[in-house]
Amino acid sequence: MPTATGEKVWIIPDGYIPEHSSGTLTSHESICVLNTASEDAHLTITIFFEDRDPLENIAEVVAARRTKHIRTSSLAKEGTPIPVGVPYAIEVKSDIPVIVQYSRLDATQAENALMSVIAYPIK
Amino acid sequence: MPTATGEKVWIIPDGYIPEHSSGTLTSHESICVLNTASEDAHLTITIFFEDRDPLENIAEVVAARRTKHIRTSSLAKEGTPIPVGVPYAIEVKSDIPVIVQYSRLDATQAENALMSVIAYPIK
Amino acid sequence: MPTATGEKVWIIPDGYIPEHSSGTLTSHESICVLNTASEDAHLTITIFFEDRDPLENIAEVVAARRTKHIRTSSLAKEGTPIPVGVPYAIEVKSDIPVIVQYSRLDATQAENALMSVIAYPIK
Amino acid sequence: MPTATGEKVWIIPDGYIPEHSSGTLTSHESICVLNTASEDAHLTITIFFEDRDPLENIAEVVAARRTKHIRTSSLAKEGTPIPVGVPYAIEVKSDIPVIVQYSRLDATQAENALMSVIAYPIK
Repeated sequence: MPTATGEKVWIIPDGYIPEHSSGTLTSHESICVLNTASEDAHLTITIFFEDRDPLENIAEVVAARRTKHIRTSSLAKEGTPIPVGVPYAIEVKSDIPVIVQYSRLDATQAENALMSVIAYPIK
Repeated sequence: MPTATGEKVWIIPDGYIPEHSSGTLTSHESICVLNTASEDAHLTITIFFEDRDPLENIAEVVAARRTKHIRTSSLAKEGTPIPVGVPYAIEVKSDIPVIVQYSRLDATQAENALMSVIAYPIK
Repeated sequence: MPTATGEKVWIIPDGYIPEHSSGTLTSHESICVLNTASEDAHLTITIFFEDRDPLENIAEVVAARRTKHIRTSSLAKEGTPIPVGVPYAIEVKSDIPVIVQYSRLDATQAENALMSVIAYPIK
Repeated sequence: MPTATGEKVWIIPDGYIPEHSSGTLTSHESICVLNTASEDAHLTITIFFEDRDPLENIAEVVAARRTKHIRTSSLAKEGTPIPVGVPYAIEVKSDIPVIVQYSRLDATQAENALMSVIAYPIK
């Protein structure tokens, strides 16, 4: 039976949703999660800010043997989304090991800019 | 005699083949593998999706003391390639230790965007 | 009580503040730090160069349960800032574990280019 | 006395020197090394290819308490440089621990694209 691989806690210090988009693509960030296990992974995502208390424990599910590329603009805690144009940081916790990568497409200008990191695993 | 270095299992959660290209370059992704050993490395690559079962165990070989930069658009399982414009994730397994990096050139706009990560090693 | 996570020493070998900006955004680098603990983190940042002695122990504070995205252009040692257009490297030390990511926006041309890495943790 | 930090062997699977440059900047790659120790670091760099034998043991020195950002186009083995437009991979060995990051500026188009990774440490 396929087993879970990776770690249960992942950190992304540099989160930022660009305020503007130009051209044909929209600025966005994705938290990309892979669940190699034969059971679902239940995530709780916490968003840290520079000047206010964290948005804690936003729930997401990644199905068994599936990936999920989560747009950060879709995350909300009791109706409060992540504000645009504000520096923040992300903690992803999972009940079973998963692997997490973070990517940003910045389309502030007409042409794209891309960045990506494997999140930092807390072991 | 040169020895194998690295790990036998590597994960890339954020795979995506852009649908369009503009300008003089073509959008593409590469799985870049280095085999430092004096024997060939036999890879099996599995592709995970958000909404369907994985494409499992696509075979590749990286020769002894060679690198191979594998275009993901060249990967296929019994004639089924990775679809374009769809989020996916990649697992690379090898029979001997190797090192894996993933890079994407997005030429959706006339100007390029680049991203790259060292894949996450499962130890 | 929330605990500290991460490591106390982080390295970024490729620092560089672009000399020029075009378009609507300004070239800059950020050292992005997350402090998950319930106490403040006290950082000392050292800047290494190719041809001169390091700028040592620049102080910064990251508050409890907060992130801080530090512009490298704001760092100075007794009034001496990091020069622009010069290759350098960064060491971030903290009195409690934190997590560090480094990102650069290059707006030398009218369109942006982005790069980002999780800093290398010294364990 | 300042001590060496990092590892003695680092791998970068995705090396590539773009063939063309447009605009005001020139396409290039840099191997960025930090030596935190109070003694010099002596590097031997090996370049692996897809279709030919490696260029082995190119020598470089990184002075004590200094960084060095090495352009790959400056590396040569007995007068043979790394060819442009060819996929390759890089192994950096050092006699004392150092930290290695790899960055590429692609100026094939008029606007820049950037990518960067911390090299993979062999422990």
